[in-house]
Amino acid sequence: MAGGPSTPALAAAVSAAGGLGFLAAGYKTPDDLQSDIAATRKLTSAPVGVNVFLVARTPVDEAALDNYAKAIEPEADRQQVALGDPRFDDDALAAKLEVLCRERPPIVSFTFGCPSREIVERLHREQIAVWVTVTEVHEGLLAADAGGDALVAQGVEAGGHRASFEDVEGRGEIALLPLLRLLATATDLPLVASGGIVDGAGVAAVLAAGARAAQIGTAFMRCPEAATSAPHRNALTRSGQTALTRAFSGRRARGIVNAFMREHSSRAPSAYPQVHHLTAPLRAAARAAGDADAINLWAGQAHSLAVDRPAGELVRRWSADARVALEHARARLQEQGGGPD
Amino acid sequence: MAGGPSTPALAAAVSAAGGLGFLAAGYKTPDDLQSDIAATRKLTSAPVGVNVFLVARTPVDEAALDNYAKAIEPEADRQQVALGDPRFDDDALAAKLEVLCRERPPIVSFTFGCPSREIVERLHREQIAVWVTVTEVHEGLLAADAGGDALVAQGVEAGGHRASFEDVEGRGEIALLPLLRLLATATDLPLVASGGIVDGAGVAAVLAAGARAAQIGTAFMRCPEAATSAPHRNALTRSGQTALTRAFSGRRARGIVNAFMREHSSRAPSAYPQVHHLTAPLRAAARAAGDADAINLWAGQAHSLAVDRPAGELVRRWSADARVALEHARARLQEQGGGPD
Repeated sequence: MAGGPSTPALAAAVSAAGGLGFLAAGYKTPDDLQSDIAATRKLTSAPVGVNVFLVARTPVDEAALDNYAKAIEPEADRQQVALGDPRFDDDALAAKLEVLCRERPPIVSFTFGCPSREIVERLHREQIAVWVTVTEVHEGLLAADAGGDALVAQGVEAGGHRASFEDVEGRGEIALLPLLRLLATATDLPLVASGGIVDGAGVAAVLAAGARAAQIGTAFMRCPEAATSAPHRNALTRSGQTALTRAFSGRRARGIVNAFMREHSSRAPSAYPQVHHLTAPLRAAARAAGDADAINLWAGQAHSLAVDRPAGELVRRWSADARVALEHARARLQEQGGGPD
Repeated sequence: MAGGPSTPALAAAVSAAGGLGFLAAGYKTPDDLQSDIAATRKLTSAPVGVNVFLVARTPVDEAALDNYAKAIEPEADRQQVALGDPRFDDDALAAKLEVLCRERPPIVSFTFGCPSREIVERLHREQIAVWVTVTEVHEGLLAADAGGDALVAQGVEAGGHRASFEDVEGRGEIALLPLLRLLATATDLPLVASGGIVDGAGVAAVLAAGARAAQIGTAFMRCPEAATSAPHRNALTRSGQTALTRAFSGRRARGIVNAFMREHSSRAPSAYPQVHHLTAPLRAAARAAGDADAINLWAGQAHSLAVDRPAGELVRRWSADARVALEHARARLQEQGGGPD
């Protein structure tokens, strides 16, 4: 939940309630990451993990990027801002790894790529467990090979960016249930399930599918502890359809379909984080103006079930509801009796 | 599983093992449907349902259909057949309903549309329960309103045709877990889960997510009782990627990506069953020639986990494995203890 909703208060509330909160390092400066970790520790002594972007420089179609900038220029004009500089950067990976090796959160999870063996070993030396977010079996095998301790299986139903190692249309668009079963067959690493989980029944389902834990994003975005913008909060409550788009960032991400997506998704090139920087000023202006039609409304497919309650209450409720859901499932299976055998 | 894999032997084996087998009425003549029902009854006294296509005539872009026929002409030449007549038909709905009202299977499920109240009442008068396959909440509400007895929730991971009432890009492409949770919140109808379920853990997961039962397709397609073609059987075992395409039938369906899909998906119009009839001769020829690159390799996203075992053995194994999966899930939840509370 980089780029807005993630806060120390949210991560701390989740961990204090017996969950495992995560701070987003993405889009933050290393200094801000450090102070967020410190702020979280003031709020709870429970363990809190950190999620880090692992951004590789990939070839970009510069002409397509230029054309895209021209196409969205009128949107920037409308918001009375200039487009941002479509530059590449790696989100300060090296400096963030320094911070993490110093601060030693119990877990660091990676998104957008597979950490090298070298990075994994460096974190391991600091007693930091390494989780790698994957969207297909091939990526899970690479992560296992690099020494990762767990796989976060991100189903196609998830809100926000696809964590795929490569941003290729159609690749890594597997729904959570089949992805969990495919990964469970291909690797022995523990699995954390992510995507479309918004309640206790969802948690129960992924545990039954073989996950050790459920990772939840969208369902926390209406919590008072989250820094989700007002227009984004409002959009979550409606039953709007979601889709994958590169329009806002240059990398496939799932958001609630709005005017900007309808208008620009078809021509948005694969160019991350160049397009992210390009659109940043207009998104910031639209967010400030409460204009939900020009901002990235990241949301998973079950977003309309997200509720506006404190995060700790949700964690406790989901845990209790998951028990009930498993009990109901067991009773249902019993009823059916497995047939004449 | 219309159009090939579905057989009386498969449906009977599933029901005899304590599952609930279904016969596909799709693409069959009413007489063949009648004899399939009779054949099934000779094999088992256990209940077997029937799945029926509900095809509405929708406006078709005739120019696009003509262009598509021209584009795939070379494929027909290669298979040494002429393209079929791209005609509309409703798959003999009225005559099939006659057969069903006479034969009275315990359940009739519908695909591609919502039965009218009139149809539902007619089936109810014969003590036939009506299930409606849905891919989004809106469709579930229509089905409830029409008097349907249960909803088959088809997740986007499912193999074969999207059951969506309308064939609109991006609509009804919700993964199974979020779809189940959205439907469970919106309606009180019992839910049957379908899409990407290939083993006992998958069955356990959907029961935990609130489904009353799991509907399984792809995972039966390698059974000796299934009439799946040899090239299709072989393709299922490989880890090939799947995608949605209109290339074979003119309606979105999920299949393993092959040369025909790569070549023609982008220009295939929404025109069902016109495109189905158009490509039927070339698909039949390719199937007979064992050419997997020119046939519709319908498959769900977890197809590579399908195994070549008798259907009854699979039903019993999945039932036993589902129990174990629920037990493991309960233990995992217990371990985590729900936190400090």
